[in-house]
Amino acid sequence: MKEQTPHREQAANHSFPSEGGTEALLVIKVGGHITGDPDALKAFLKDFAAIKGKKILVHGGGKIATRIAEQLGVASNYVNGRRVTDEAMVDVVAMVYGGLVNKKIVAGLQAFGCNAMGLTGADGNTIPARKRPPGKVDYGFVGDIEFPLESGVCQLLLRSGVTPVFAPLTHDGKGQILNTNADTIASALAVSLSAVYQVRLVYCFEKKGVLRDVNNENDVVHLIDRKVYARLAQEGALADGILPKLENAFDAIDRGVHEVIIGQAADLLQNIGPGVTGTLIRS
Amino acid sequence: MKEQTPHREQAANHSFPSEGGTEALLVIKVGGHITGDPDALKAFLKDFAAIKGKKILVHGGGKIATRIAEQLGVASNYVNGRRVTDEAMVDVVAMVYGGLVNKKIVAGLQAFGCNAMGLTGADGNTIPARKRPPGKVDYGFVGDIEFPLESGVCQLLLRSGVTPVFAPLTHDGKGQILNTNADTIASALAVSLSAVYQVRLVYCFEKKGVLRDVNNENDVVHLIDRKVYARLAQEGALADGILPKLENAFDAIDRGVHEVIIGQAADLLQNIGPGVTGTLIRS
Repeated sequence: MKEQTPHREQAANHSFPSEGGTEALLVIKVGGHITGDPDALKAFLKDFAAIKGKKILVHGGGKIATRIAEQLGVASNYVNGRRVTDEAMVDVVAMVYGGLVNKKIVAGLQAFGCNAMGLTGADGNTIPARKRPPGKVDYGFVGDIEFPLESGVCQLLLRSGVTPVFAPLTHDGKGQILNTNADTIASALAVSLSAVYQVRLVYCFEKKGVLRDVNNENDVVHLIDRKVYARLAQEGALADGILPKLENAFDAIDRGVHEVIIGQAADLLQNIGPGVTGTLIRS
Repeated sequence: MKEQTPHREQAANHSFPSEGGTEALLVIKVGGHITGDPDALKAFLKDFAAIKGKKILVHGGGKIATRIAEQLGVASNYVNGRRVTDEAMVDVVAMVYGGLVNKKIVAGLQAFGCNAMGLTGADGNTIPARKRPPGKVDYGFVGDIEFPLESGVCQLLLRSGVTPVFAPLTHDGKGQILNTNADTIASALAVSLSAVYQVRLVYCFEKKGVLRDVNNENDVVHLIDRKVYARLAQEGALADGILPKLENAFDAIDRGVHEVIIGQAADLLQNIGPGVTGTLIRS
């Protein structure tokens, strides 16, 4: 089964920058399990800073928000694993994601020689959104991104050697900051910038990649295309949690993203180079 | 006494944009008494957004930081009226200044059609600083700005129609965010951008302007040049608190800033137009 063998031969074609005429751009998302761990974050930022070429970082930060909210006496409520963002909580996430976490990351990247600039979707109007209409569940101040994004400000920064670092916040254009999932922001940026760049979208998550056997960290599926995906899904080989991630990856690819990589933050440099240890997803 | 008469004749020469060949830039600082008052802030942002041409906003936010710190159980310590920023407090100011206050201002300006972008001195390395060496008092994580500032990123944003909005935070280039006085940041930006623009530096404060009689709000000195300043200082006519502000204003002018205006936030539009109700300071 080809997708189980180490992916070195295929991956050799994906070295950075892109082989084609279009300039390459990496959009990398790192989650709360790294941003909440100072040592892991520092190691990650060092690797991220070492990447040559154009890149964007999107970060989460959920655990720190929960802790600060607790200290401030603001209750954290979840429905179906998603945070409900009431008026007190949207102030907390603005503080924690947009201030504490984002500025630590920016200052950390500056220390490693990467000229980072922290942004929310309100900054430069980079990610307009609208408050999700209450359905069965009212998630509160949660923003659904308004497509298509206008990527001019991001392009301007990238062309000037500045690396945008996005907190998972958007705005409604009427003065309200909104909470938006970091995976969704990364995908939206990757899609909109695919009009100009050959974009690779990298999700750093807890596992080494997409695992055939969720209990075996070494059983990574190194390449997933539509055929492989259909077969794995049919076989029921994939853990439930990974299916939406793969759906989102193929959706991003359908909308112009060159390829998607899912792997561990600690493997970032391998995963964007010729020796992919995670999972490469392409059409 | 000429400086006491309404300043309409002289001020008519200072309409925005500048009359000279150099493009005009306004650097406007607004303090915690406005950023901490939602109604006053909204009115101010509406006025700020209405200003045509290139502009930068620098904001404080002290009172909110004190309140959030209190809720988080972080003690606020002051020596000589200045905050001591220990390790817990620098996280609070990063959250509150860089997140809560900055993002509310940015989202608010976007709602009024001003394409704002929130920055700290770490973002784009716009304001490098070094931790103040402990002297008689150890102020903790307080940053003294490292001159000269490289203003390329600010120029890039301004040229692209983006309005930078600075939180009073800098960084040490080694990964640490530092707390820096907002007046100082406004002055530093105004000085560095004077190499390219004809800069007017506007301090919004509690009083209508520099008062000859601190108990009479209508007794504003509308024009202060060096001669007037020397005379007023000699007469002992000025309140103690205003002297450092005037020293700083003349210092900025010595370093290239075209003129400095001190007045009330509510009078912003008059003060930058031909009907100055505050105090205009020039060499």
